[in-house]
Amino acid sequence: MRSPVGHADVPARPGREIPEATVARLPVYLRALTALVDGGTATCSSEELAGAAGVNSAKLRKDLSYLGSYGTRGVGYDVDYLRYQIAREIGLTHDWPVVIVGIGNLGHALANYSGFRSRGFRVVALLDAATTRHEELVAGLEVRPFDELEDIVGTQSVAIGVIATPAVAAQDVADRMVAAGITSILNFAPTVLSVPDGVDVRKVDLSIELQILAYHEQRKTGQLPTEGASA
Amino acid sequence: MRSPVGHADVPARPGREIPEATVARLPVYLRALTALVDGGTATCSSEELAGAAGVNSAKLRKDLSYLGSYGTRGVGYDVDYLRYQIAREIGLTHDWPVVIVGIGNLGHALANYSGFRSRGFRVVALLDAATTRHEELVAGLEVRPFDELEDIVGTQSVAIGVIATPAVAAQDVADRMVAAGITSILNFAPTVLSVPDGVDVRKVDLSIELQILAYHEQRKTGQLPTEGASA
Repeated sequence: MRSPVGHADVPARPGREIPEATVARLPVYLRALTALVDGGTATCSSEELAGAAGVNSAKLRKDLSYLGSYGTRGVGYDVDYLRYQIAREIGLTHDWPVVIVGIGNLGHALANYSGFRSRGFRVVALLDAATTRHEELVAGLEVRPFDELEDIVGTQSVAIGVIATPAVAAQDVADRMVAAGITSILNFAPTVLSVPDGVDVRKVDLSIELQILAYHEQRKTGQLPTEGASA
Repeated sequence: MRSPVGHADVPARPGREIPEATVARLPVYLRALTALVDGGTATCSSEELAGAAGVNSAKLRKDLSYLGSYGTRGVGYDVDYLRYQIAREIGLTHDWPVVIVGIGNLGHALANYSGFRSRGFRVVALLDAATTRHEELVAGLEVRPFDELEDIVGTQSVAIGVIATPAVAAQDVADRMVAAGITSILNFAPTVLSVPDGVDVRKVDLSIELQILAYHEQRKTGQLPTEGASA
């Protein structure tokens, strides 16, 4: 990693609480910065970075100020160093062992998803309750019985579990994950999970972005539904 | 659909511009309302609905006011009717034909994803450039050659395309989609697409939620990265 430009006086961990909305944008900035680094860009203005990330530049500057990153007047941000700062803030500069439970098509896709590995998420086990899936090799890992969950979480210090099962199985899987010591769950199953305090759950609904597109598409075409317009 | 309770005087389409952040929350409300309907709930307070959707109730009330939905004092919202109002606002009360391009594991998972169909998105074609995948039956559809894109978009009035190809192929697929007349693209490929004005692109990055979990997990465990804390 290159040495920082113009950031030497700024404490790297100001210790401030970062607002949740800013936390949610940090991965987006990280992705934009990685694209800039890959494209050979060494420094960029807040406007350039904001454009690449799809936010306005005032919001970007405010967000980055929580990290103690203010750029350098007339130079902008050191792309490589800022990427490092954000990765460190998120916690991606160390390794996160992850288990995926439910190795259907989505589980397969997640196991093979390069975006996990490149951000420090290391899939250490693929588990499925169906014996027909066991011993299948997916992304270089053998699919294991779900009953090995506790063992794997304990021996590999797994803190993050990914649920890619059908909805009906998801709560049981979450309960077993929590009992085994997992404290963060990424849920792809189309159901709401209930977990004890201290366990974080985030849900990915693959249809939400499609619904947002439909909203705009409907307005573009001027095509309104034919059902009664009012009660 | 049941007749509305306490909404009769409120115009169903106030014609106001809905803020983008509200648009993004409408699918979340819709999901919560569907769960309430499925659980047999007929009316609910804004607090109950806000809790189910994971937002605060003031924000919920503000969001729903854009739809002309204010609930009834002492009664709350008619769950079934509110669900219909939101579905209509998003455009889900009519049918959206969708094509999916790239039928690897993720494409398989998307083709089988029940959350699309239940929201009015009808997958009309699965396309892949690889001849080895052609004629395979996925979710009741035969995988077709990518070259049939223009034909299918034209004959089936497809406005929305889903890209589930590797990153390297995604821009070419997007260009072909746009040339064929598609005006909304949902991009799962880990790359930024460039499209002309008037075409909407939304990107799903499966790792972003995982990164947000990592941020909180890091703070829970007090585990800080070992790299130099400051420049």
